[in-house]
Amino acid sequence: MSTSKVETASLSQRAAALSPNAAAKVPPGAIFFDSGHAFPGILPDLSEESTKALGSFRPETLQYAPRPGLPELREWIAEYLRADGVANRSAAEILVTNGAKHALELVCRLLLNDGDAIVVTAPTYFTAIPIFRSFAVEFIEIAQDSEGLNAKELQDCLRKRAARGDRLPKFIYDVPDFHNPTGVTMSRARREALLDVAEEFGIFVVEDSPYRKVRFDGESLPSLQGLDRTGRVLTLGTFSKLLAPGLRIGWLSGAPDLLNRVVQLKADGGSCPLTQRLILEFCKSGRLSSHIDVVQRTYRAHRDSMAAALSREIPEASFDKPQGGYYIWLTFPVQADTDALAKLALTEGAVVLPGSKFFARCATGSAAVIPSNYMRLAYSHATPAEIDEGISRLARAYRSLKPAKSHRQKK
Amino acid sequence: MSTSKVETASLSQRAAALSPNAAAKVPPGAIFFDSGHAFPGILPDLSEESTKALGSFRPETLQYAPRPGLPELREWIAEYLRADGVANRSAAEILVTNGAKHALELVCRLLLNDGDAIVVTAPTYFTAIPIFRSFAVEFIEIAQDSEGLNAKELQDCLRKRAARGDRLPKFIYDVPDFHNPTGVTMSRARREALLDVAEEFGIFVVEDSPYRKVRFDGESLPSLQGLDRTGRVLTLGTFSKLLAPGLRIGWLSGAPDLLNRVVQLKADGGSCPLTQRLILEFCKSGRLSSHIDVVQRTYRAHRDSMAAALSREIPEASFDKPQGGYYIWLTFPVQADTDALAKLALTEGAVVLPGSKFFARCATGSAAVIPSNYMRLAYSHATPAEIDEGISRLARAYRSLKPAKSHRQKK
Repeated sequence: MSTSKVETASLSQRAAALSPNAAAKVPPGAIFFDSGHAFPGILPDLSEESTKALGSFRPETLQYAPRPGLPELREWIAEYLRADGVANRSAAEILVTNGAKHALELVCRLLLNDGDAIVVTAPTYFTAIPIFRSFAVEFIEIAQDSEGLNAKELQDCLRKRAARGDRLPKFIYDVPDFHNPTGVTMSRARREALLDVAEEFGIFVVEDSPYRKVRFDGESLPSLQGLDRTGRVLTLGTFSKLLAPGLRIGWLSGAPDLLNRVVQLKADGGSCPLTQRLILEFCKSGRLSSHIDVVQRTYRAHRDSMAAALSREIPEASFDKPQGGYYIWLTFPVQADTDALAKLALTEGAVVLPGSKFFARCATGSAAVIPSNYMRLAYSHATPAEIDEGISRLARAYRSLKPAKSHRQKK
Repeated sequence: MSTSKVETASLSQRAAALSPNAAAKVPPGAIFFDSGHAFPGILPDLSEESTKALGSFRPETLQYAPRPGLPELREWIAEYLRADGVANRSAAEILVTNGAKHALELVCRLLLNDGDAIVVTAPTYFTAIPIFRSFAVEFIEIAQDSEGLNAKELQDCLRKRAARGDRLPKFIYDVPDFHNPTGVTMSRARREALLDVAEEFGIFVVEDSPYRKVRFDGESLPSLQGLDRTGRVLTLGTFSKLLAPGLRIGWLSGAPDLLNRVVQLKADGGSCPLTQRLILEFCKSGRLSSHIDVVQRTYRAHRDSMAAALSREIPEASFDKPQGGYYIWLTFPVQADTDALAKLALTEGAVVLPGSKFFARCATGSAAVIPSNYMRLAYSHATPAEIDEGISRLARAYRSLKPAKSHRQKK
């Protein structure tokens, strides 16, 4: 595959995918570490699948689709989840959605009323924050360590709320595998402890799991849904990281009674049957497992390039090497202001996201201070050579950075 | 094209597109008049477009897309609307969505708070009703006549509400061209009167316009947005009726300040760039206008078959022949119970929707009585021969129908 041509196209495309204003500020030749775009060089050739999908399957693929998804795809996803340790999962427990974010929005519409509380990690997935905010939630932020969300802190927090008569959260939202943004994978003990807390307080768990198969090192741990004994875990899955983001197909896996209610909220004329069929033909042909190998090999090399470049160029910034996923979470010295650093890096031609974007923050209380010294770097989209160059640019920006005065309130 | 093979496939597909329970009750060989599915025989061959989309455009089509839509497609839609009389419409005034229902949901999220009132016609598009209900709206129902929504009745109603200090509606929802379900096309005078009322009370107009190009007779009238002087019309468009429902691409056209707010609510990782690109290549190649000719010719023949069959087989049921669109709205004698008739027709092998499904109804007051003697028939999906057979089946069911006791409250 001619990688260089694909990359050139993808850079301008990538800039266009930003908001028009943001795109205007991005200098030509910029290197993007800001977002979990796929590496263009491994986007699969779907022309055979498309010939079938638009030929013999035309009356299916160009017509309205069943609202819960193509039956055959729901069955395939159920089998995929059974093979991943979710015992007895059936097609009736799968709802096909327009990507995982759509699934998250549907879960919010099902479970939340204005002013409800939810639990998120601090930091958490930044694109989920405005979705939650649009439901006017109260955020309960719980810290993570190298084993993932601190279940003991969560339990203490919820016991105090219960004792005070404060409302309990409707659900706990987490990314247990290769967390976005921290890259942390939750330990098995912590997964079990999290589910124990959810059971103790009778609340749901929303497991967002886009990166689960993008593992480079170590053994896969049971998913939260795989460990769930009481049907309280709703899992968001997607083909974006398995196959290609542009297909816009994800799923929601959960108890049938919940899914029957969610499907009533999914007033979209069915998710796109054409991309569902493309995915199904790709998976049925057996190409998925070899493609996952390519995905793992590619992003492992990207991660290694970025880790090496960071150690070499910015030794002041510490990080734990993630075992999978798309991101490295950098901790700069405490006086560093990564909001300012992100702006400087942009002028150098490296697009990065400061850590401040990943804190939902409680509306009140001392927890409203946002740490200023974190940064998320995505290694998914750039080539190893671009990663080297981009980290050099970030290092130059860091050298020219003035120290921050202190912690800041979020604007 | 081998129509018969396509049809066989499409019937089982069509049954699957119903909810699993509903599908179970549909007898084999049933003829579907219930839903606006496309005629399978005219679903276009998109293989050339797909070769391009998945080849040289791959870094665009398989990657995340810009949230407002592909810039080139937004430009194409803007030009399409300018050619349709919406002066100076620019790409900044177009948001690409996952079909028109997604656009409607976004408009509701933008404009509605729980308990807000909206204006709908009585009857109105039945799939919009649960979307509106999920926002806990109060429905203000306004009658239609052969010129469309009765603007004078609306004005009187709103003046009374204003005098009483009742809250005014946030928007008026209507389908001015080939109304769903009545098939009525609003006259130009009525369009102007509707906009005058909207201006008088400072409320928005949501113009749902999927069938606009599916015109068989007469001249096109200016769209509500084309007549709008004050930026209060939000128009929902779709490629579902222009091209194919399965592509799941629609749009919202409106003032830029509104669209900038809507795009913040569209947290979906961008609408599918693959189907956007397929559409764009189809339109750019010049195939759209000849395809629209095929669409018009096909559905005109279907309408004529259905109108002739109805006059022949069920002369007791009256209807106005629509100038376009997908539907005939039947008025049975006042004592007929079309809920019961729909059930009988199903056992005869004709799937129809009783008129009761199309009334949003106010929650309180005498308006809560639902007329029992209407029925919507879609002539889009079935062949002319199937239409003949299906109307015979409906006629048999009608002959065996017992008269209803009286008007009923909606359950």
